[in-house]
Amino acid sequence: MQVKAKYKVAILGATGNVGRLLLEILHERKFPFESIKLLASPRSVGTVMESHGQQYKVELAEPSAFDNIDFVFASAGSAVSEQLAPEIVKRGAVLIDNSSFFRMHDDVPLVVPEVNAAAVLKHKGIIANPNCTTAPLVVVLKALDDNYGVKRVIVSTYQSVSGAGKEAMDELRATSAQALQGEDFTNRVMNQKIAFNVIPQIDKFTDNGYTKEEMKVVHESRKIMGKPDLRVTCTAVRVPVEICHSESVNVELDRPATVAEIKSLLAKTPAVVLHDDPARSIYPMPIDVAGEDPVYVGRVRADESNPNTYNLWIVSDNLRIGAALNTVKIAEALIKQLAAAKV
Amino acid sequence: MQVKAKYKVAILGATGNVGRLLLEILHERKFPFESIKLLASPRSVGTVMESHGQQYKVELAEPSAFDNIDFVFASAGSAVSEQLAPEIVKRGAVLIDNSSFFRMHDDVPLVVPEVNAAAVLKHKGIIANPNCTTAPLVVVLKALDDNYGVKRVIVSTYQSVSGAGKEAMDELRATSAQALQGEDFTNRVMNQKIAFNVIPQIDKFTDNGYTKEEMKVVHESRKIMGKPDLRVTCTAVRVPVEICHSESVNVELDRPATVAEIKSLLAKTPAVVLHDDPARSIYPMPIDVAGEDPVYVGRVRADESNPNTYNLWIVSDNLRIGAALNTVKIAEALIKQLAAAKV
Repeated sequence: MQVKAKYKVAILGATGNVGRLLLEILHERKFPFESIKLLASPRSVGTVMESHGQQYKVELAEPSAFDNIDFVFASAGSAVSEQLAPEIVKRGAVLIDNSSFFRMHDDVPLVVPEVNAAAVLKHKGIIANPNCTTAPLVVVLKALDDNYGVKRVIVSTYQSVSGAGKEAMDELRATSAQALQGEDFTNRVMNQKIAFNVIPQIDKFTDNGYTKEEMKVVHESRKIMGKPDLRVTCTAVRVPVEICHSESVNVELDRPATVAEIKSLLAKTPAVVLHDDPARSIYPMPIDVAGEDPVYVGRVRADESNPNTYNLWIVSDNLRIGAALNTVKIAEALIKQLAAAKV
Repeated sequence: MQVKAKYKVAILGATGNVGRLLLEILHERKFPFESIKLLASPRSVGTVMESHGQQYKVELAEPSAFDNIDFVFASAGSAVSEQLAPEIVKRGAVLIDNSSFFRMHDDVPLVVPEVNAAAVLKHKGIIANPNCTTAPLVVVLKALDDNYGVKRVIVSTYQSVSGAGKEAMDELRATSAQALQGEDFTNRVMNQKIAFNVIPQIDKFTDNGYTKEEMKVVHESRKIMGKPDLRVTCTAVRVPVEICHSESVNVELDRPATVAEIKSLLAKTPAVVLHDDPARSIYPMPIDVAGEDPVYVGRVRADESNPNTYNLWIVSDNLRIGAALNTVKIAEALIKQLAAAKV
């Protein structure tokens, strides 16, 4: 890729939760786009989407659609990414992919710009965007690791249904209404009933008893932070919330810190907002953080059962920092690094 | 208290979530009652409640109401328990109290019969029932401690609104309906909006940054298990679920165990049901466990980041094992121990 004044962008999977938000965020952040092409499967072709007063018609996601494109922002699932990636790369575009397909590939950088922006330059046509629970987590862990060393991390998540797609959000609303009416209801999109329930399974189970979602947090955190031996374990749980993932995080540090020092560190960490004042019942919650860009942290306190250990509560918009926003930030980081390398 | 064939029972706070269930459970379990008197505050006096074909009229909770009563099962809050306990005790009744008021008093046994049934005999008129998150947790921890030694416990909870009372359940339903209609809504009962949200605060904050709810798990677990130095930390979170508390528990053991051994142990632990088959997506969830007596455990797996450490997922009916059921079981344990002591 060459540094340009403006770039031709394609959004692959444009009609999904993340696709729609990608279109918004490109405008919000004034990304230097020359054009935006919306691509999706046949059933969405012809759909008209609007953002910031401009209308876009969805086109077919076929190989020739990527001719003369600079950036492809993809959020269409692993199968689509696997199939179209070679077509995208051979046409010279850079694919920034939200699916899990390429994340652990050795020759694909997995990037959260606040943590490992430099990795973007190592791309061979594909850069992967991490799992929506991992991205906010590593932003916080990176700050702690740089200053005190992270020894061990135990995460329990409270993940919203938007991570499972627009249809899952519709199902949460529809089945909640049915439950309130006392009607029987079934789940068609989610793997279990989500209305007024919590589900301790996200994605499929693997051989070790963990779900893929839980193992993504382990493997992706290690890759992004460049710490292949990082000790981390996760329990991933779906909750009946529309947008935002929350995480209860217990983190043991290598070196001593006070709660005040950790709060002060997080308050000045880029992309992090410290929202932590128990006396005034101030802490992050999904209904407040939905639609916001930063990673919100609160409930910072010492785990009195173990030395140098702290409990934190992290809430972030899974569609933004966990997906669409991070995707656009990766492209911005690449542009910046290419420009810097050129000088 | 003397061993009798049948006992005169009073339910204090009879119209609340736990009070109503106490009436049910006394019938369900065929508790040897001669009579049941329902007591509540003036605004509920005269209310007629029905259980198993019998009707009961709510009477005023005044001191003379406890004349000639053997057992008082109380779930009317700390202020009421504090005020009426001396009146109950001086009349010779045994108070089994669901409020937090007496739990940490040195001369009040805090009992989960599966864990420390023998403690009931030490009562001086009052026996305390633990917090609804603590009760199911210690049932599981006790089994692990007896067999492998429990070294350290990290708990993140997913607690239903029924723990905050009947009005909180009504508010969840009413505000969820408003949210689905796109209406603005406010919280009047809960401390924050709960519809389609999660709230990382249950009860008030204490000086160390933890909530009272979180510290109850720490202090009450230690007292019930008789391990004053038990290392345990908790993050307590309210979720938009009607009944059942879920807990993501990371437990480090003193001695090695395999996942198979832990599963086998839990499967044969009284009052515990192992509900754990990932291949068939079997694990406990609130909508399945509501109305059930046992503590359900699933998602048992090794924490690969630390030796001898395991992740568990515990779900239990907070109104039953966490409150009404445990209260009745305490009375049953006392009767049994008194009978045994007499022989």
